[in-house]
Amino acid sequence: MDEYYEDVTVGETRSFGSYEVTREEIVDFAEKYDPQPFHTDPDAARNSMFGSLVASGWHTASISMRLLVDNYLNESGAMGSPGLESLRWLRPVRPGDVLSIEVRTTDKEPWDGDRGVVESHLETVRDDGETVMTWDSLVLFPRA
Amino acid sequence: MDEYYEDVTVGETRSFGSYEVTREEIVDFAEKYDPQPFHTDPDAARNSMFGSLVASGWHTASISMRLLVDNYLNESGAMGSPGLESLRWLRPVRPGDVLSIEVRTTDKEPWDGDRGVVESHLETVRDDGETVMTWDSLVLFPRA
Repeated sequence: MDEYYEDVTVGETRSFGSYEVTREEIVDFAEKYDPQPFHTDPDAARNSMFGSLVASGWHTASISMRLLVDNYLNESGAMGSPGLESLRWLRPVRPGDVLSIEVRTTDKEPWDGDRGVVESHLETVRDDGETVMTWDSLVLFPRA
Repeated sequence: MDEYYEDVTVGETRSFGSYEVTREEIVDFAEKYDPQPFHTDPDAARNSMFGSLVASGWHTASISMRLLVDNYLNESGAMGSPGLESLRWLRPVRPGDVLSIEVRTTDKEPWDGDRGVVESHLETVRDDGETVMTWDSLVLFPRA
């Protein structure tokens, strides 16, 4: 596991996770943080461009973060993130979809005297094989 | 209010919202979606680089989305978002902080025959006046 910046290998790819997205969780998240009708109301969603209830993009991002924390970040030396680039919501996530993620390390460079920053490309994938979301993240690691 | 793409004015700035972030909500969100110790465990947080419990960056983003939906998106013709650029978490959000947002429309252009895409710069601001998060969003609007 990557404890220090020096342990991180550019080009390495990791895949993990299996998170079933339920109707109840889609509505619960959206009522708190993204109460647009196509996330909270099945009838309104049926008449929207989506045709049925879909998860908030922020919900999909948060689920992806959970998969990343459980399978990588909490076992690594990662010290938090200054941000990310190019988040894209490509396809809808609907009740019953099962999500997993694939993370490819794309670059790393020194950040300051004590830390380095690691760039990664993340894809969130539905169980039908379609990618639903991508982002390019920055994560800080301690230098050995 | 901006019903159609043609109604949107580049350069317009809107400020709104007042969302108090409680310790209970920080821990609840983090236990579901970002269970890193500095988001879920006050003792571990005290010994981290943050010095005390801080909100998940995804929680700050989700709260900002709620402010945007309540005060603008749900009253507009907005049809969802293909994504965003340059999300940055600049400063921590701690229990008791009150967040508001400022949104400035920076550009708009046609997307396809039926829709246009509007680019906006969003800042999430703490009640001490410091900006804690920024992003540049893309939102689709119907063409009149």
